[in-house]
Amino acid sequence: MLNQPDQIAQLRERFIIELRATFTNREPRGLYAPIDYVLDLGGKRIRPVVALLAARMFGDDDLSKSMPVALAVEVFHNFTLLHDDIMDDSPIRRGQATVHEKWDVNTGILSGDLMLIQAYQHLCEVPNKSTLPALLFTFNRVAIGVCEGQQYDVDFEVRDDVTIDEYLKMIELKTAVLLGGALEMGALSAGASQDDADHLYAFGRLTGLAFQLQDDLLDTFGDSASTGKLQGNDIIRNKKTFLFLKAIELLGPEGREELNRLFSDSPADPTDKVVRVTELMASVGIPQEVARLRDAFQAEAYAHLEAAGGSAEVKVVLRALAEGLLQRIS
Amino acid sequence: MLNQPDQIAQLRERFIIELRATFTNREPRGLYAPIDYVLDLGGKRIRPVVALLAARMFGDDDLSKSMPVALAVEVFHNFTLLHDDIMDDSPIRRGQATVHEKWDVNTGILSGDLMLIQAYQHLCEVPNKSTLPALLFTFNRVAIGVCEGQQYDVDFEVRDDVTIDEYLKMIELKTAVLLGGALEMGALSAGASQDDADHLYAFGRLTGLAFQLQDDLLDTFGDSASTGKLQGNDIIRNKKTFLFLKAIELLGPEGREELNRLFSDSPADPTDKVVRVTELMASVGIPQEVARLRDAFQAEAYAHLEAAGGSAEVKVVLRALAEGLLQRIS
Repeated sequence: MLNQPDQIAQLRERFIIELRATFTNREPRGLYAPIDYVLDLGGKRIRPVVALLAARMFGDDDLSKSMPVALAVEVFHNFTLLHDDIMDDSPIRRGQATVHEKWDVNTGILSGDLMLIQAYQHLCEVPNKSTLPALLFTFNRVAIGVCEGQQYDVDFEVRDDVTIDEYLKMIELKTAVLLGGALEMGALSAGASQDDADHLYAFGRLTGLAFQLQDDLLDTFGDSASTGKLQGNDIIRNKKTFLFLKAIELLGPEGREELNRLFSDSPADPTDKVVRVTELMASVGIPQEVARLRDAFQAEAYAHLEAAGGSAEVKVVLRALAEGLLQRIS
Repeated sequence: MLNQPDQIAQLRERFIIELRATFTNREPRGLYAPIDYVLDLGGKRIRPVVALLAARMFGDDDLSKSMPVALAVEVFHNFTLLHDDIMDDSPIRRGQATVHEKWDVNTGILSGDLMLIQAYQHLCEVPNKSTLPALLFTFNRVAIGVCEGQQYDVDFEVRDDVTIDEYLKMIELKTAVLLGGALEMGALSAGASQDDADHLYAFGRLTGLAFQLQDDLLDTFGDSASTGKLQGNDIIRNKKTFLFLKAIELLGPEGREELNRLFSDSPADPTDKVVRVTELMASVGIPQEVARLRDAFQAEAYAHLEAAGGSAEVKVVLRALAEGLLQRIS
């Protein structure tokens, strides 16, 4: 048997071959070329891989039942990136020009629309049509959740009374729900019961939440050399993550006032700001607070993974994958 | 039995009640409020009404089987209008501010995305789940066609070698395919055979083509008082419709050169340009050419309507509805 990282790498390669096989020379090129471009930019392909693993847990050994689900979730995810990049006016995605930069905004809108349709089209190609109503029910729910999460993210930028619960709800919708949905739909496509699929959904949702907290933590307290990201980027952008909201809760009146003041400014040289915000957060134990919540989510996630039926061997791989997502700092 | 216009009006009212019943107070309002706004702007509701009529042809008397299809096609149609208005930067739709004007472009993109998902969600609510694979197959095909049509429309604006066949293909994709799809899906939802549904698709597609030609004709040769549209709007915008392309084909070298010259200019006062282009078109019998092609499409459309099985009584209503669409000039 292959070791776990090899199994994951093998699934990823297999998926990329299937994904590239969907690229066409179809006209009009102005519509289709940006889709192939964005789908070929790379990425970790986490969502399709976990969908395939969830199906393998329930006997889809050759992945023929779940590959349409894997394609659907990856195309949907890249659709959201494409439209989000337009909304955020981001010039770069995965080191390359975004679609609206390389082409234009209208191309980005229309090609993204088509990708959303193609995601449904992939889903409809599951060989076992009796699973289709349940798959679509989940896919619709997840897709709506992702849109709601994006809207909350936008809304929260101009609100100064966002609660920690609201923030967690937002990151759940924006990122965790799709990871959970990929697992749920992978399992359903292989004929798992809704109960088993629900446990996998919860495993994915909670792992997604843990991952997002970890990501926020690394942004401020990680080692930028190993994460490859600019240190303190969220602080520079005044992004009110869990770290900020929890620090506001835990700081005394003076510290709270100072942190709010720092987050209402955008100095040309942000070095001092990043240092001071980091100090304030560390002074009330934010790294420990984040780690505690992250670990609580992850423990709950593993409990759901254990509670699901299906192959124990594949569960080990899924657990290894989740560990890998969180492994970037101790 | 109600007369035909009353039956159509009754279906429209019934549909609008069902549509409004989908409006929610759901959060986040920034996402949902624009959707209710755009769906409540009005319009003729042709697509849902023909979907319901197609289902009634095959026995869906209480419309319970086809209402989800009617909602799906109307929500999809309004999604395309919302995103098209962003791409065209149109400030007004049906006499009211467009979504990106009333809110902003990002709201328009995201709310439109959610509408596309909601269209699928409506479709998935058909009570007879065994029809779902065929309905989704048609819906995906139609939705992809509409996106392709929009892209061709954009591409054609900067091309000067568009053929008449290409133009007809573009208007087919952009407008006729969805009318056909509404009829096909309405019939399928009521349990019609694919063969009968295909005839209704062809009826809708050809009626859509006839309607678009009629619309182009009215824009230049209609009576602006009765159409309510600015006379010669396509000419002012240098839009290369069937009228322009056919005139280029039929004019001699001098006329062709003059028409091309007029269409490469955008004078501040377009009155003389509109008059001269109209004269040039009339000189080679463009109104008669358009009417001939329109009538050929419509005759073929009616042949497909006759060839379909189902209630002859309801066919009469569908035919009356098609006549009504084309009745605005003789």
